[in-house]
Amino acid sequence: MNTVKIEKLTNKTFAHFGDVIDTRSRNYELINNERCRKFSGLSTVKVQNNDPIAFSIFESEGKQLPIHLDFVERHPLASQGFMPLHYKKFLITVAEEYNDEPVNLRAFMTDGMQGININPNVWHGVLCPVPERGRFLVVDRLETNNNLQIHKFEKPFIIDWQF
Amino acid sequence: MNTVKIEKLTNKTFAHFGDVIDTRSRNYELINNERCRKFSGLSTVKVQNNDPIAFSIFESEGKQLPIHLDFVERHPLASQGFMPLHYKKFLITVAEEYNDEPVNLRAFMTDGMQGININPNVWHGVLCPVPERGRFLVVDRLETNNNLQIHKFEKPFIIDWQF
Repeated sequence: MNTVKIEKLTNKTFAHFGDVIDTRSRNYELINNERCRKFSGLSTVKVQNNDPIAFSIFESEGKQLPIHLDFVERHPLASQGFMPLHYKKFLITVAEEYNDEPVNLRAFMTDGMQGININPNVWHGVLCPVPERGRFLVVDRLETNNNLQIHKFEKPFIIDWQF
Repeated sequence: MNTVKIEKLTNKTFAHFGDVIDTRSRNYELINNERCRKFSGLSTVKVQNNDPIAFSIFESEGKQLPIHLDFVERHPLASQGFMPLHYKKFLITVAEEYNDEPVNLRAFMTDGMQGININPNVWHGVLCPVPERGRFLVVDRLETNNNLQIHKFEKPFIIDWQF
């Protein structure tokens, strides 16, 4: 059985795959007559050739642990940011790459406050709110043409806190 | 007294100034094994010259109506998107332009579900959650240099539902 234990999501643990969008332990400046804390540049959109970047909203059903992961996908041409529009958790699965294939699959659970921005070309599982359904702002390349690759696993991975 | 009555925010009423980021009355496609509704391309980032676009978070105190508006600002080089990270309302003030100055100030209240993406160069008031404090994902140009202009009103505007 292929199993993956869920890790805690931090900017450090996730650094190889992208950024965590979170204000804690980040600096801010006071703007708007000191009425507003601005946590600037928590991540940046990565895109090529002035490709159009869109705001979308994904409304996804929730899943219960353990999660069975059959495939991962990646987007070569741009980053993909997910921000929950409520304070709910979601599971992130990402993998390193070797010879264009995903290796060393890892799983992270957000704590409700956190969003993520996945770097271009990083293998990852699809949006997975846990356990409740969730609503997310997504910021990524408008067109999906040439920007979606899928890798199916011969044997699914089982993902949970412990085994 | 300069007064402005608050209008209902819809894509139609706001079209001159930018886009409403909202799923209602928008089409979606089912993705992720039909577990997720994807409302794609609700707005796009407007930017010049591959300038870096950032994810930031603004945490702003709330204000009570009536709002007194002393100035507006604009960002010539990129759009600026605001999405509430909870279901709370905020007041949007925008103006048309004549000879580079703001004219015909208008005010819109979101209904809690709505975000907005303000077009480049549109005069607007700063982020204004009403009445409670709010937390917003902001997607705009990373650097503020050359991207902020301010116009102070000789006489402030008073903004409310009725007068």
